[in-house]
Amino acid sequence: MRIVVLAGGIGGARFLRGLRSAVPDADITVIGNTGDDIHLFGLKVCPDLDTVMYTLGGGINEDQGWGRTDESFTVKEELAAYGVGPTWFGLGDRDFATHIVRTQMLGAGYPLSAVTEALCDRWQPGVRLLPMSDDRVETHVAITDGGTGERRVVHFQEYWVRLRAAVDAEAIVPVGADQATPAPGVLEAVAAADVILFPPSNPVVSVGTILAVPGIREAVASASAPVVGLSPIVGGAPVRGMADKVLAAVGVESTAAAVALHYGNGLLDGWLVDTTDTEAVAEVEASGITCRAVPLMMTDLEATAAMARAALELAEASR
Amino acid sequence: MRIVVLAGGIGGARFLRGLRSAVPDADITVIGNTGDDIHLFGLKVCPDLDTVMYTLGGGINEDQGWGRTDESFTVKEELAAYGVGPTWFGLGDRDFATHIVRTQMLGAGYPLSAVTEALCDRWQPGVRLLPMSDDRVETHVAITDGGTGERRVVHFQEYWVRLRAAVDAEAIVPVGADQATPAPGVLEAVAAADVILFPPSNPVVSVGTILAVPGIREAVASASAPVVGLSPIVGGAPVRGMADKVLAAVGVESTAAAVALHYGNGLLDGWLVDTTDTEAVAEVEASGITCRAVPLMMTDLEATAAMARAALELAEASR
Repeated sequence: MRIVVLAGGIGGARFLRGLRSAVPDADITVIGNTGDDIHLFGLKVCPDLDTVMYTLGGGINEDQGWGRTDESFTVKEELAAYGVGPTWFGLGDRDFATHIVRTQMLGAGYPLSAVTEALCDRWQPGVRLLPMSDDRVETHVAITDGGTGERRVVHFQEYWVRLRAAVDAEAIVPVGADQATPAPGVLEAVAAADVILFPPSNPVVSVGTILAVPGIREAVASASAPVVGLSPIVGGAPVRGMADKVLAAVGVESTAAAVALHYGNGLLDGWLVDTTDTEAVAEVEASGITCRAVPLMMTDLEATAAMARAALELAEASR
Repeated sequence: MRIVVLAGGIGGARFLRGLRSAVPDADITVIGNTGDDIHLFGLKVCPDLDTVMYTLGGGINEDQGWGRTDESFTVKEELAAYGVGPTWFGLGDRDFATHIVRTQMLGAGYPLSAVTEALCDRWQPGVRLLPMSDDRVETHVAITDGGTGERRVVHFQEYWVRLRAAVDAEAIVPVGADQATPAPGVLEAVAAADVILFPPSNPVVSVGTILAVPGIREAVASASAPVVGLSPIVGGAPVRGMADKVLAAVGVESTAAAVALHYGNGLLDGWLVDTTDTEAVAEVEASGITCRAVPLMMTDLEATAAMARAALELAEASR
């Protein structure tokens, strides 16, 4: 079975671990979000790709869900001693090595997809991890500065990590997406898929950014495979993160049903909501999307694998 | 008193510490060798500049004479886990931060001299540290491979650090030196100097490389200030390092007198040899260079300061 998953960071990575456990023999291709990539200290950092790679490769810091386990912060402290920031982005020493290798390879002319493949040679994530695009795409967020009242545009990471999404996101722009092309293998994987899954990743700045690369949304919409998503909203709030802030920016309510309708029946064939959101099932189905309510809390590997199995069953039922 | 010192790495840095101690009120400009600079992991590494900066700034690993004190090697281990080398060059985590800042600034368009000044803002070395040039110069060494018998050219660091100068250096070429121009301030400092010193640095790959930048040798030769050097060869052998191997490559014997004659009386006004080399004094003086024999072992700060005082006294006597 060939499965394609459009994944963001922590939520996507944890779901993938469950999926791999549920169907260990499946051929899984992950199309990773690169819209939250950022250049820090002259190095190219790809937080979502790395979270997937570290999580599936056994190197993730399980408690925080991102970054390396058993991490130290000597380089960061030294950079701060030079007065060089930003200090709000927590790059550890082990993590730095990944960004150094990536930046060196990019500088030598390798595209991000080839670099990602080389990094995965070490991590053996058990999936084929593709960046959505080899082109530079950076999600920016328009905010009104709480102090000065001025409108300004910040990198998504500054909005998410430094500001903790504490101010409203007035607009979200994946800068460069309109000029980007899908990375080699992306469209081919979508076309050849038996199932396409949207894990409970952020529908705006993760899955939404991937779909914003011209060609990907169209390929998913026209794929012969059923497309099934899992709601990242449970009981009217994001399971983790601050997805409500970026959903508001695109005029979408933070409910399991509203997210399904945001994707729409042009994309989705099936949608899973949590059992606390059973009332959403009728609304989603009224829009032409098959919907089921199952437990959607990724509390452990078995619970996550059960979610993956439910998604695959729903895909089978929507075929 | 304005003193200009042409310095390599460890020997130059330790001498400078003695000089600063001997004449704490002097205005010291260091022209640093950059011929041993190397790009590692996509980062610009300047071993000699950093050794001077760390030594005078209190951050040096005293035992080995280079690199940072209290160092860890997490990044290097991670790079090795990615299969990315070289592994023979010991970059520690603290040291990596210096190279990351430098590379980022160079990438942003700052010349090496401006970057060095910015790094020294943190270290406060108590001297003005100038790279010999903002242009890229890399010393390469021609060797005959012991295994294959083939002639090949390696970067100086590979010859020095990886091969430990265990094979003969057949030629030494400061690649790019002939196209390089002195960094801003270099020629001005030489012209305005009251004294110019050659510390007991390597006469070929440290001081020799600095003098290979067009304009610097001429400026030193025509400076009104006396030029005094200290022999890095004591009792027929280098005090530290493997200077004999690179002296042989340029056809110079490893004796205190031969090094003085290699510089020549067109450059040198005075030369200090160690008391074990008293027999060299007459030979050096016969070439028109004033010569004294004093203890030249930098065993501690006071011994090094005494060497610096002897050099300044000889400069005074040669004026």
